[in-house]
Amino acid sequence: MSAARRAAVPPIAPIAPIAPIALTMGDPAGVGGELTLMAWARRKISGPVFFAIDDTARLSALARRLRIDVPIETIADPAQASDVFPRALPVLENPLEHDVQPGRGDARNAPSVIASIRRAVDYAQSGAACAIVTNPIHKGVLYQAGFTFPGHTEFLADLAAIQTPPVMMLACPQLRVVPVTVHVALRTAIATLKTETIVTLSRITEWALRRDFGLSNPRLAIAALNPHAGEDGAMGDEENTIIRPAIEILKGDGIAVSGPLPPDTMFGEEAREGYDAAICMYHDQALIPLKTLDFHGGVNITLGLPFVRTSPDHGTAFDIAGQGKANPTSFIAAIDRAFAIATNRATTEGGGPTS
Amino acid sequence: MSAARRAAVPPIAPIAPIAPIALTMGDPAGVGGELTLMAWARRKISGPVFFAIDDTARLSALARRLRIDVPIETIADPAQASDVFPRALPVLENPLEHDVQPGRGDARNAPSVIASIRRAVDYAQSGAACAIVTNPIHKGVLYQAGFTFPGHTEFLADLAAIQTPPVMMLACPQLRVVPVTVHVALRTAIATLKTETIVTLSRITEWALRRDFGLSNPRLAIAALNPHAGEDGAMGDEENTIIRPAIEILKGDGIAVSGPLPPDTMFGEEAREGYDAAICMYHDQALIPLKTLDFHGGVNITLGLPFVRTSPDHGTAFDIAGQGKANPTSFIAAIDRAFAIATNRATTEGGGPTS
Repeated sequence: MSAARRAAVPPIAPIAPIAPIALTMGDPAGVGGELTLMAWARRKISGPVFFAIDDTARLSALARRLRIDVPIETIADPAQASDVFPRALPVLENPLEHDVQPGRGDARNAPSVIASIRRAVDYAQSGAACAIVTNPIHKGVLYQAGFTFPGHTEFLADLAAIQTPPVMMLACPQLRVVPVTVHVALRTAIATLKTETIVTLSRITEWALRRDFGLSNPRLAIAALNPHAGEDGAMGDEENTIIRPAIEILKGDGIAVSGPLPPDTMFGEEAREGYDAAICMYHDQALIPLKTLDFHGGVNITLGLPFVRTSPDHGTAFDIAGQGKANPTSFIAAIDRAFAIATNRATTEGGGPTS
Repeated sequence: MSAARRAAVPPIAPIAPIAPIALTMGDPAGVGGELTLMAWARRKISGPVFFAIDDTARLSALARRLRIDVPIETIADPAQASDVFPRALPVLENPLEHDVQPGRGDARNAPSVIASIRRAVDYAQSGAACAIVTNPIHKGVLYQAGFTFPGHTEFLADLAAIQTPPVMMLACPQLRVVPVTVHVALRTAIATLKTETIVTLSRITEWALRRDFGLSNPRLAIAALNPHAGEDGAMGDEENTIIRPAIEILKGDGIAVSGPLPPDTMFGEEAREGYDAAICMYHDQALIPLKTLDFHGGVNITLGLPFVRTSPDHGTAFDIAGQGKANPTSFIAAIDRAFAIATNRATTEGGGPTS
């Protein structure tokens, strides 16, 4: 691991000098509640302080039923969280209107789910929370209740009133990836790949690596689209027509960038030493190496928002919700990562990405 | 690792009851010569016996220059290899017509390169060799000399006079993958994906897992093409139109098959326990997880040939040839894998894939 990479995670101060982290409720029929409880049960003495914006009664009942030993205390303001946190999970009351059946999404509870996100963003915007970590929502359930955003990230961007769409980074200790195209068919991902998108996402990523990860000279690796990076056009021309022009623009910005790299060899241990984040051309090019290296510990980080937001890299998991089977590794890693980013932002300059 | 997976590598007998393995020369300007020397230098007492079909003078000069301590003995027949092997690398003379400059392919030497392959196949077909392990060739150099096959594999298929195209499997200790499409643009891979190809390759793979890997009940995982396996057509329809029909046909054959699996989650450690080989829809879907898990140790195995053939999963590496920098891990793994397959074939039934 290079010196630059090692510098990515700042030392965690014994007593956090910054505001607590807000955890959203997520879909109450999903695994969010038990993840929140398990995160507190596994809290670290010197780790980040957090509070949940959730329904106290349902969390208490869930803790009893799953026999997770978590005392719960209602707080009236995020400022009370750090006093409460050592002895109990601090919860800002966010009541559900209807009973929850684990695994069965209920659109009647959608207003509470959405309220939890709105309130978390308000606290993050005001500085009362240093970051938000969102529990998984179920889009289908929210759509039934009239939610009109494609997903969490777009809703957050709207709440933050930002113009440039935010960027999804996925990170585990060994690798950071940013997919240029996300939830579309692979055929569509190729058809819609644009130089401009690669440039914009790379600039936001480079900025985030400085501000959020504390890297003074971030290095980006731009993946090729085709096998062997197209072998000079013999196996596809997108490297020459779309990706190389983006790399030239980024070099013109003064960004340390390499590529287009053959996708199959760029995620090996030695190759990973050569960059701080990989810009990937499609969803699975980014997610396959990440989940192969660290299936449970990946964290989703939204870059380009005015506040810090992370989330676990899994969904509501309705099939195992309420059974105590959920693995909290990714959620806990999301909390730790949010804290590290917030700490970095508190100590580094502001500014913005090259544009 | 499951019991079935553990059963994949048979115990290696102290004295091999089978014929020796033939190593081809590969492009003499590439890393092949030093790989052959290093493989002998790192030979295992109870490991496979092999011989090179190569130019004795060039191997001796290379060993001296790189200070690899490898005595070389010319043999006249593969049958002499096992006597010679403990004390020297046995070489069947295959003279080069022209001096070799490392890193500089020379079409005038192409006839010797091709002769080495032809002779290895002859020995494998006659039973004088139990398997062939090919050193990397450089297609560009061979094309200049009038070679008309797209690559090694097609040439071998022609020499073997088989009708069904052979299938490329890549294997490391943690994973076996078979890409359905190989060296084409990603766009072309999608456009040419066919139910029939998936079925044919899966049948050959299942057969090879029985015959070559000694698995009594092989399980295949069929990858999806699109993110999240297309989410019921929301992100691409190839799962429904092309891949699911293939899976139904394979189930009808009685093959233990699962899928289409979301590509990003199928290569995690727990997921890999559920199958013995993954059938992948495109080159990098197969190669990214393999090279992420084991960058140096991957082996290329050609399934569907009447003889056993493996090779390292890298090329001639002209940029480092002749400098002693080449990593022999993949080449040595290819020899060990060829030996294991030959041993399995010697002890299992014949037959053929379902068709």
